[in-house]
Amino acid sequence: MDMGTLRAATGGIGMIIRDLAPGDRDDVREALVDCAAFSAAEVRMALDMVESGLNGDYVLPAVEMDGRVRAYACLGKAILTASSWYLYWICVHPAYQGRGIGRRLQDHVEEIVRQAGGDRVVVETSGRADYQRTRSFYRRAGFSVSGRIRDFYKTGDDCVIYTKVLGRVA
Amino acid sequence: MDMGTLRAATGGIGMIIRDLAPGDRDDVREALVDCAAFSAAEVRMALDMVESGLNGDYVLPAVEMDGRVRAYACLGKAILTASSWYLYWICVHPAYQGRGIGRRLQDHVEEIVRQAGGDRVVVETSGRADYQRTRSFYRRAGFSVSGRIRDFYKTGDDCVIYTKVLGRVA
Repeated sequence: MDMGTLRAATGGIGMIIRDLAPGDRDDVREALVDCAAFSAAEVRMALDMVESGLNGDYVLPAVEMDGRVRAYACLGKAILTASSWYLYWICVHPAYQGRGIGRRLQDHVEEIVRQAGGDRVVVETSGRADYQRTRSFYRRAGFSVSGRIRDFYKTGDDCVIYTKVLGRVA
Repeated sequence: MDMGTLRAATGGIGMIIRDLAPGDRDDVREALVDCAAFSAAEVRMALDMVESGLNGDYVLPAVEMDGRVRAYACLGKAILTASSWYLYWICVHPAYQGRGIGRRLQDHVEEIVRQAGGDRVVVETSGRADYQRTRSFYRRAGFSVSGRIRDFYKTGDDCVIYTKVLGRVA
């Protein structure tokens, strides 16, 4: 496949959107650790879910730039629902933030959900002050708050539940 | 152990509260199917979680009456939280409902959570009209609504999230 065509198709900034592969594990770990948003336990959990995803339990879209994976997401159908999906993780390497990569990845996530017949995406995130940027990201991406579980993660650390209902593609 | 003592300890109505055991699978299946609150997919999911629970992934308290398990619950610590627990399933055989068994089991669930250092219990249930009795059960048990994900299970079938913060035992 012609790389020039791929780049053109993904915005002309050298961004390749593809599925995560086993060889990307180190890149994912680096993005998760360096972005400093996640505790050691959260990084372990995210990496466990990458392993499960590589075995088919989750969908793992990734963004490759400069020859390495710099962002990825982990999502899956919500069991016992007709068409709801959970977006479990989305992470952009800090050196690549602020370029719209997260938003491009989010658009791709929604396209995956739509293609699979899904019509809504649910995200659980932290209500902590240092997650303000994450919550703004979801709000700008069209999510609204569906709930808040006080002190869920720990005292002073609420779980905020966001939902986005996906419009039909014209 | 003296059965008379056990009965006295559990309210004098022949109710034995104990952990679910592999031999109880048929009783659990009967309670789940007969109570008619669960779809075939939900029953399968509940039974899968019983298997995982018997392998140590969840805690499975059960109520035995007349020599058979007539109610059980499935709960587990919420990963990545300091002290939050999810109550995934609670089911009382329909012929044994209306006798306070669900409430006794719920009290036991909360005692399990407290003993494990937990301080809150989160439940997700349906917002459908035919789940009114279930939602009333949680409200009477001291749960409050933390959120509502519209049309989560399917169109017209919201997910309602309840949380109960456990008080300290004097």
